[in-house]
Amino acid sequence: MLSKNQIKLIKSLALKKNRSRYQLFTVEGVKGISEFLNSPYICRSVYTTNPVQFKDLSVNEVTDADLKRITQLKTPNDCLALFEIPEKSPPQLEGLILILDDIKDPGNLGTIIRLADWFGLSTIVCSKETVDCYNPKVVQASMGSLARVNMHYTDLRSFLNSYQGEVYGTYLDGRSIYKQSYPSDIALVMGNEAHGISKDLNEQITNRITIPQYGKGSSTESLNVATATAICLSEIKRTSGMPG
Amino acid sequence: MLSKNQIKLIKSLALKKNRSRYQLFTVEGVKGISEFLNSPYICRSVYTTNPVQFKDLSVNEVTDADLKRITQLKTPNDCLALFEIPEKSPPQLEGLILILDDIKDPGNLGTIIRLADWFGLSTIVCSKETVDCYNPKVVQASMGSLARVNMHYTDLRSFLNSYQGEVYGTYLDGRSIYKQSYPSDIALVMGNEAHGISKDLNEQITNRITIPQYGKGSSTESLNVATATAICLSEIKRTSGMPG
Repeated sequence: MLSKNQIKLIKSLALKKNRSRYQLFTVEGVKGISEFLNSPYICRSVYTTNPVQFKDLSVNEVTDADLKRITQLKTPNDCLALFEIPEKSPPQLEGLILILDDIKDPGNLGTIIRLADWFGLSTIVCSKETVDCYNPKVVQASMGSLARVNMHYTDLRSFLNSYQGEVYGTYLDGRSIYKQSYPSDIALVMGNEAHGISKDLNEQITNRITIPQYGKGSSTESLNVATATAICLSEIKRTSGMPG
Repeated sequence: MLSKNQIKLIKSLALKKNRSRYQLFTVEGVKGISEFLNSPYICRSVYTTNPVQFKDLSVNEVTDADLKRITQLKTPNDCLALFEIPEKSPPQLEGLILILDDIKDPGNLGTIIRLADWFGLSTIVCSKETVDCYNPKVVQASMGSLARVNMHYTDLRSFLNSYQGEVYGTYLDGRSIYKQSYPSDIALVMGNEAHGISKDLNEQITNRITIPQYGKGSSTESLNVATATAICLSEIKRTSGMPG
């Protein structure tokens, strides 16, 4: 049985200001929760209608009705957990890092985190206007990958000013991604869904790249940012001669 | 001013059975509508709060309140149009074609149609269980690209039995996509979000391919189907030596 205060606290975590206040966020579904349990994240509590899912863990058994009261999702799973938002650590700057300039859609950010995990990236650096990575929809779309990718929110202009590697940014009028050689320390900048990369960052971006368009007379203006990120990460990883 | 019957008809098109009955579907937003107007699709009517958007076209001016009554989207645009569902024509089987085996999520299908358009594919062949391409959320996510890509729904087993080219399917245990040569006539099969490619199609798939995973000890099980499609299309197009 959940108390009124517990329900109030958990529901309040839908909002970023409350997540910041309590330094807590929610993860739903057994797969996502298991990934966070197997990570450095600290679990505060698990609420489940089916405790047998979590063998050696002390969990709170709740009813379906209670779970419906606390879920942040349209289609609730059978479990929800609270995890602590970790303290900030400095980003790892070696190898390939991904820079997100004002990604607004939670589904896009979650999908990009999942991609970064697939391609073995340890770090994503986001502009302060990028959607919060502990937003329930981002956590959901990342399918547990958020447990393994370090997320940093910062001012991108100052960050890129002090970054030592090469900075590649995706534009509609850059050089083909297939006709580049990519160094080992590289930052890849992906822009906002509607406006692309901020003009503010023009000076910092040393290499303007483009995914060539093959459509004949197509007026498609751009790819979805998550699919564009997928293509760029694949190409950079492929040419860097890593295993595959 | 919209009549009750008009509102009833348009709202009914949220359901596939009604789209089939009336052979009509809705497109919302000036960008999407313009793309369909510039295509072989036949426009039945346009409803807009801002007729100046459609210069030489006879449109129905409606109020914001009316538009809210007919929109299929959470955040309505300022215009909605009805287009006729075209008659079926046989699929073009030359070059690269995309085969979708039970894609269920409308956002995924829309994103994949946009990708196909970007990479110049003329044809997508879908299993009968794949979400309907005239579903309002699919139309929305395709960002107008649906106007240029021919969609076919059919039994995939019989279709692949008669298909003459090579058939590639994405699995978790196939050969690396980066270590293949791709013929010019090729069908790429992408599987369902949760279950992958149906076992029913095992015999038809001559080449099992995989996007290599770079994560160290990562337990990510798979990529989102739209991002996986993006990576495969990029790699097949890149190696086929097409412009870029």
